Amino acid sequence: MAPAACAAVVKADAYGLGAGRVAPALAAAGCRTFFVACIDEGLALRADLGDGEIYVLAGVPRGGEPEFVHHRLRPVLNSLPDIEAWAAFSRRTPAAPAVALHADTGMRRLGLTPDELDHLASNPERLAGIDVACVMSHLACADMPDDPLNQAQCEAFAALRRAFPNAQASLAASSGIFLGGAYHGTLCRPGAALYGVSPVPGEPNPMAQVIELKARILQARAIDGGMSVGYGATYRASRRQRLVTIGIGYADGFLRSLSNRGHGYIGDIRMPLVGRVSMDLTIFDATAVPEHQARAGGMVELIGPHQPVDAVAADGGTIGYEILTSLGRRYHRVYRGGGAAMTAEA
Amino acid sequence: MAPAACAAVVKADAYGLGAGRVAPALAAAGCRTFFVACIDEGLALRADLGDGEIYVLAGVPRGGEPEFVHHRLRPVLNSLPDIEAWAAFSRRTPAAPAVALHADTGMRRLGLTPDELDHLASNPERLAGIDVACVMSHLACADMPDDPLNQAQCEAFAALRRAFPNAQASLAASSGIFLGGAYHGTLCRPGAALYGVSPVPGEPNPMAQVIELKARILQARAIDGGMSVGYGATYRASRRQRLVTIGIGYADGFLRSLSNRGHGYIGDIRMPLVGRVSMDLTIFDATAVPEHQARAGGMVELIGPHQPVDAVAADGGTIGYEILTSLGRRYHRVYRGGGAAMTAEA
Repeated sequence: MAPAACAAVVKADAYGLGAGRVAPALAAAGCRTFFVACIDEGLALRADLGDGEIYVLAGVPRGGEPEFVHHRLRPVLNSLPDIEAWAAFSRRTPAAPAVALHADTGMRRLGLTPDELDHLASNPERLAGIDVACVMSHLACADMPDDPLNQAQCEAFAALRRAFPNAQASLAASSGIFLGGAYHGTLCRPGAALYGVSPVPGEPNPMAQVIELKARILQARAIDGGMSVGYGATYRASRRQRLVTIGIGYADGFLRSLSNRGHGYIGDIRMPLVGRVSMDLTIFDATAVPEHQARAGGMVELIGPHQPVDAVAADGGTIGYEILTSLGRRYHRVYRGGGAAMTAEA
Repeated sequence: MAPAACAAVVKADAYGLGAGRVAPALAAAGCRTFFVACIDEGLALRADLGDGEIYVLAGVPRGGEPEFVHHRLRPVLNSLPDIEAWAAFSRRTPAAPAVALHADTGMRRLGLTPDELDHLASNPERLAGIDVACVMSHLACADMPDDPLNQAQCEAFAALRRAFPNAQASLAASSGIFLGGAYHGTLCRPGAALYGVSPVPGEPNPMAQVIELKARILQARAIDGGMSVGYGATYRASRRQRLVTIGIGYADGFLRSLSNRGHGYIGDIRMPLVGRVSMDLTIFDATAVPEHQARAGGMVELIGPHQPVDAVAADGGTIGYEILTSLGRRYHRVYRGGGAAMTAEA
């Protein structure tokens, strides 16, 4: 099997990192095909990218067909009604862009159902006038290699490929790529892995970390044993402790579920997050940090070499994807080089 | 005691609702005093508001003093070093704006510690040149009326007021207002309550709901008993069920913690959220909804008359504040009238 091409998923503003900066950097690195969630993201991405194929995963909103032509967006068709509407449009529009057909092989979220695919196989005229450039599906359990659903989806996808032998075939996203070549088709489409989230939970992360998040200390203080900290007084000091308060909270995407569970670093020293994360402020126990390093004006690492995205997610009871897409708008963002590495500070 | 004045907290982009629209509406309704988290928010708000007092809760970032003068922002001074820096600046700056002094009476987050307040009382010259227009503190347990910390904070705040008899006195935020007149001081500063979050958890919400969030159905499908739904196959159908998929996910602030716990409404019918919330998509069990109402193009209520912000928060294991501040950027937002009511759709 020839090596597959590699697209990039840049939906949700490139997973919160800024599609306007990330996508051009990926294009400069050789990426030719991009996936976004909805038409508005496609329009913004076209403005950022001169060339490149852009697939819109949610397909065409009602009446949106002309925008797809004008901005050379490729809709992902998810259902027979999607196909019917696009066929009618493309038969009267010579320049109608190519499309991807999305089959639901086990995710039960979007995509043509097995019944709909059977119907299409028996009625190929329903696709007349549609340029099917790609067939695709999405794995439900790609991060759980032993789940039998992976093999079942892979087989259903193979059948789809046989029905569209001239189309590109795209099944694997970040984790699917690591399930092996049988899952690669001709076009992989990683998203999270590009941004440093591990595609293989529980194993060493093969991906480089591309972001750092740091926050400035607004104030340091000492409290006595017995004193409570933060909303609801959910943390109580067991002895005299030194605390630092940073100007980042859940409104910045530092999730409230990190309350009493998250961590921050000053230098190499790990600090427990104490009390509840507030909207704009978060407090750490800096008792183990030398006092001259735990002062107003100093910086706390929230995401970085000591604490990758996935570690923050584990503390917060979620996945790295949500940590990234939740990153807020109040950060001062600095992009380094063409590799889209980013440092954010507050 | 005279009735207190009422400020508005519009930090975090007016709790996610859009400070550029919300603050002018509040000003038109008579609000004269606003609180924001950081200088960037203060600068944006000044551009949106001609007049009005704007307090910046995080105080002055290093070297930021001239911006406070130029844009008439009032810093909240949280520590002796804050006071020292502002005093030095204001002694050489005739037009230096007034400030608020923030005392920590039990939150242990920001604010002058009891030790620092004692030091100030003994060394009043440290405040020379500073126009203290307001003294403030923040309650840790205002939503838990029986917590003894409320009374202790109220008493500590009363002592602060006696030390600054000519300054405005601001203690109560949304929930604090409902603790009674002893907590009102001369300036209340609600935030969440303005936006419909209940300030009295566990009791009937005295506030009006001001936002609605609706999402369009991208696709409807039927699945058979035994089939799994979504990432990780965490939901399994017990019988034939009809599902609807909407184009909103955790990247839109519909938190991943709502997976298998949240709800949506079509008309008056409550639908359980099934499977995991994805980044851009969420699935509901629409079996109880008449089929002609559960079709692509129809709308699902996520926040609104059937499901207030606090109900979504309860499903997701958090508070209404985080639901609001997490609202994403992909919504089509519609503001209704001068009252800042908002409808968002995706």
